Amino acid sequence: MYPEEKFYRLTAIAESLLKQKQYAQLRGMLLPLEPADVAQLMDSLSGESIPLLFRLLPEELAGEVFVELTPEHQQQLINDFSNSELRAVLDELYLDDAADIVEEMPPDVVRRILAHAAPEMRTGINQILNYPKDSAGALMTTELIDLEQSMTVSDCFQRIRREAENVETIDVCYVVDAGRRLTGFVTIRALMLAAYEDTVGEIMDDDPISAVTQEDQESVARRFGRYDLTAMPVVDTGGRLVGIITADDVMDVMQEETTEDIQKMAGMLPSETPYLRSGVRQISASRLPWLLLLMLSSTFTAQIISSYEDALAACMVLTSFITMLSDTGGNSGAQSSAEIIRALSLHEIGIRDTGRVLWKELRVALLSGVTLAVVNFGKMMLVDRLLMSNPAVTVTVALVVSLTIIVTVVAAKLLGALFPILANQVGLDPAVLASPFITTVVDALSLLIYFGIAVLLLHI
Amino acid sequence: MYPEEKFYRLTAIAESLLKQKQYAQLRGMLLPLEPADVAQLMDSLSGESIPLLFRLLPEELAGEVFVELTPEHQQQLINDFSNSELRAVLDELYLDDAADIVEEMPPDVVRRILAHAAPEMRTGINQILNYPKDSAGALMTTELIDLEQSMTVSDCFQRIRREAENVETIDVCYVVDAGRRLTGFVTIRALMLAAYEDTVGEIMDDDPISAVTQEDQESVARRFGRYDLTAMPVVDTGGRLVGIITADDVMDVMQEETTEDIQKMAGMLPSETPYLRSGVRQISASRLPWLLLLMLSSTFTAQIISSYEDALAACMVLTSFITMLSDTGGNSGAQSSAEIIRALSLHEIGIRDTGRVLWKELRVALLSGVTLAVVNFGKMMLVDRLLMSNPAVTVTVALVVSLTIIVTVVAAKLLGALFPILANQVGLDPAVLASPFITTVVDALSLLIYFGIAVLLLHI
Repeated sequence: MYPEEKFYRLTAIAESLLKQKQYAQLRGMLLPLEPADVAQLMDSLSGESIPLLFRLLPEELAGEVFVELTPEHQQQLINDFSNSELRAVLDELYLDDAADIVEEMPPDVVRRILAHAAPEMRTGINQILNYPKDSAGALMTTELIDLEQSMTVSDCFQRIRREAENVETIDVCYVVDAGRRLTGFVTIRALMLAAYEDTVGEIMDDDPISAVTQEDQESVARRFGRYDLTAMPVVDTGGRLVGIITADDVMDVMQEETTEDIQKMAGMLPSETPYLRSGVRQISASRLPWLLLLMLSSTFTAQIISSYEDALAACMVLTSFITMLSDTGGNSGAQSSAEIIRALSLHEIGIRDTGRVLWKELRVALLSGVTLAVVNFGKMMLVDRLLMSNPAVTVTVALVVSLTIIVTVVAAKLLGALFPILANQVGLDPAVLASPFITTVVDALSLLIYFGIAVLLLHI
Repeated sequence: MYPEEKFYRLTAIAESLLKQKQYAQLRGMLLPLEPADVAQLMDSLSGESIPLLFRLLPEELAGEVFVELTPEHQQQLINDFSNSELRAVLDELYLDDAADIVEEMPPDVVRRILAHAAPEMRTGINQILNYPKDSAGALMTTELIDLEQSMTVSDCFQRIRREAENVETIDVCYVVDAGRRLTGFVTIRALMLAAYEDTVGEIMDDDPISAVTQEDQESVARRFGRYDLTAMPVVDTGGRLVGIITADDVMDVMQEETTEDIQKMAGMLPSETPYLRSGVRQISASRLPWLLLLMLSSTFTAQIISSYEDALAACMVLTSFITMLSDTGGNSGAQSSAEIIRALSLHEIGIRDTGRVLWKELRVALLSGVTLAVVNFGKMMLVDRLLMSNPAVTVTVALVVSLTIIVTVVAAKLLGALFPILANQVGLDPAVLASPFITTVVDALSLLIYFGIAVLLLHI
């Protein structure tokens, strides 16, 4: 059963229970649900019922649900909370979640949150908010268990037992020196396997893979996956341990970044708001710029065509293949660019591979182009000429179109592969230069090639 | 510094050390590297040096590196291994990794591996290989720590200490009843916080989020992220605990699935081999089918154009805007479909939202369409008519083109949003119906609209 199906049903039940004021039953229905599910349910209900529903939840669940709600509803609840209610919810939050929430709130709400947060949380939030958006520092939580080399395994167990409640993971503990510089890490597994009297120094792994607070979250996510980590320590520029990033945060980042790439490759400005929650103006704003740019840039194609008007007038049948040619070129280019952009973002290829890539694309292009050309030639002869008995479709015309296909596909695939690599090299985002842009360039090219060949072979 | 940069340097050094037979130094260079890095280094070196390099590695590192090598090189090494070497490497592997490797090998190699694997590993591999590709069963490892409700916390610690070495994570332990049915889970954190004499039954969480062996890995990954899990238990259809899936496996799945989506959206058949490792024929095979299909399907557009040849002949200037119109339509449609496909795959929207989606797209389309039309009208009047002093570009012609833009953008965005939702509903992959396909449909539409309006307003 698809999740959405499940929620349409849950929502229906919840709504009727709300109408009948069957709050006990409603609570009973919510208790066994996962926080994320309760949150989605609440988000799908009408605004006024949210505070009511929220107050039905036991404290701990309430905290976890709160994190998953939309910023709009979080704000609504905070405004609705009494100070003690607000304090209760904040106490249930992990620091990095609290920071994420604060980031979304207007100044007055932020002030109120900071005013009622526990002192450590307040300092933590302020610290995290000082890091650039989408940086490791903004992603991390500062709640972690740090150990010193001199501690024995049983010391560690004591500290872990004492602090486990306040940290997101105890899977890995990090080792710092007197200057709080990160010197190594110990997995809970290593602790389990060691003798109680062993010291941390003896059992720790002394080259942890760490992130610097300023590092971009995308590169953090990439290394996280590459090295199969469950947690990554974050150090400041002085090498001092300041926080930790956990796998669940990284999965969210991977999802975000993918959405961004897909949006850019489809010629949109990336937006972080989920589709249904973005307004019409917001969506249009993210789509219009490229559409406009691309529309205007096709002035060139228009110029090219009109400059060949006489040639076309002399052989009208040529016009009917213009769109097919520009589509085939556009699609070929889009394929190459999509593949290269993905390979770049997975760091499978770099600038040094340009030669290999182009050589590969050239051969792929020739193989594809010739195949397409042959099929097209046959199709024009059989379908257009014989079947549709269109006398204008001569062997020469079919030849012109087919040759154009080959040259266009080759040009499209080479450009489609080259643009992203160059963009990446000069520090531009390759995804932005993707399909739509290449389509336009390839259009102009394919037309020039088309008419060039036509004039040559048809003497028009 | 970008990873690739780092590796070009490492490779250069390694190659020179190999030439000078400086094996001790070479080993020294490899030791501090992460397994994934050593593997990438070896993959980038010439085949013959791989066994040599591999034998320089200490046993444990060797195992971890082996997992990360390309199937080709894994096979090369296995063929090169003595039986004892093979046994040594296999002993270092986690079961799920071993299963992944076996899946890639030809029958004779598989037989050799199974012959030298420890009995438990052999049964485990066979079990995992029996599950469908890309299913939870194929993704899981069967090495896990299971507890019974009657055990005390100190019993648990003992068992964990005993088994920690052979399992991938001890973050979560799963609780089974006498019939091995999954009844709950205990996190290492809960164990740490509990008193030694507490029983598992008292401290366990009794509704674990689990996957069924047959479940598709993509839906496993989605729930993993949705519920912020670090591990997910896998049960058979009888509810019996058979394995566990860990976060690192899920991250790989997320990456795979994203690549597939991007390839499909660019009109390619998905392929799992990284770009540089796929052959020309393989790449062409994944790209040609759609190119062919799309080229042939634009026969319709050709038909449409040629059926309006007289109209065009009467007003040649119209031809020069054909590509601009079909591109604008195609881009508009591609934007909507990309956004909807992503929202579908994140389960942000479902079939029930069709109404809301279309209503949103309609308003976005009108807003974008009108803007584009106005800009285009101005551009045609100022640039084409005045600047390029092309008398053929009359107000009526500009009007025809601008009106076509509005209608086309609306049609394109509605179709671009509708197709993926419908595809998803009837169980087709929405990504496959994406941009290239929509482009073709929109092309035909935009031409019909264009000529329709032209004939109407220009009386040709």
